Amino acid sequence: MLQNYIVDHIGIAVSNLDKSIERYYDDLGFVLHSRETLSHLEVEVAFLALPNTKLELIMPTPGSSNPIVKFLSEQGEGLHHICYEVTDIRAELASLKSKGYRLIDEEPRPGANGSIIAFIHPTSVSGHVLTELCEYP
Amino acid sequence: MLQNYIVDHIGIAVSNLDKSIERYYDDLGFVLHSRETLSHLEVEVAFLALPNTKLELIMPTPGSSNPIVKFLSEQGEGLHHICYEVTDIRAELASLKSKGYRLIDEEPRPGANGSIIAFIHPTSVSGHVLTELCEYP
Repeated sequence: MLQNYIVDHIGIAVSNLDKSIERYYDDLGFVLHSRETLSHLEVEVAFLALPNTKLELIMPTPGSSNPIVKFLSEQGEGLHHICYEVTDIRAELASLKSKGYRLIDEEPRPGANGSIIAFIHPTSVSGHVLTELCEYP
Repeated sequence: MLQNYIVDHIGIAVSNLDKSIERYYDDLGFVLHSRETLSHLEVEVAFLALPNTKLELIMPTPGSSNPIVKFLSEQGEGLHHICYEVTDIRAELASLKSKGYRLIDEEPRPGANGSIIAFIHPTSVSGHVLTELCEYP
């Protein structure tokens, strides 16, 4: 199963979403593509549109205790993950699992912008990169 | 100065370049785009071509004492930087400097694939992202 992996976005953990959106727009001209709260993941996310991919700014929702809170408290803001768009996420997860990859999500769950998503554990991925797959309807 | 920033590549620090290239190819189908040693930066880099951008795998050359060595010893392999392609790197650096950004490279220096590059200090960039600019001839 060798699908074309497209970089859907690069995830960046931030502590102040409004301020980051403003800074990226004012200083670098990056335009807001979409913004939403993913309640089940306890995060608020904003996507900045670049010509060939997107940045995803991720902030924990108030009172949450998810991995982004841990990430921010342990190492502060910073590069968090790469998300690849694939055409058949379930087939890709099965393929990776058969190759010994450790899946954080065995089954896809709802993501941003109407996608379904699944995370692969960074210890499985060369270069120790937290890796997300997404599929759009 | 609001140029179109294109994500040229996502930089990932690795400890074994051959193994990482092999893993990304065998498991995910990512094809090697180019590979070279940048002696003045004391790194060997490999670019993997994706449909819309590239991954850059970065490994210190033997005996080097550059920031990648420090990065690997402090936090291990992982996401390292984002590089944006711009059309006029000197103009962009001047613009960022005027906005208070801390430049690691005041003047561009030779980078991979015939580019000229300059790094911006992560403390200046929202989300604390080590940011590289590159310009191709």
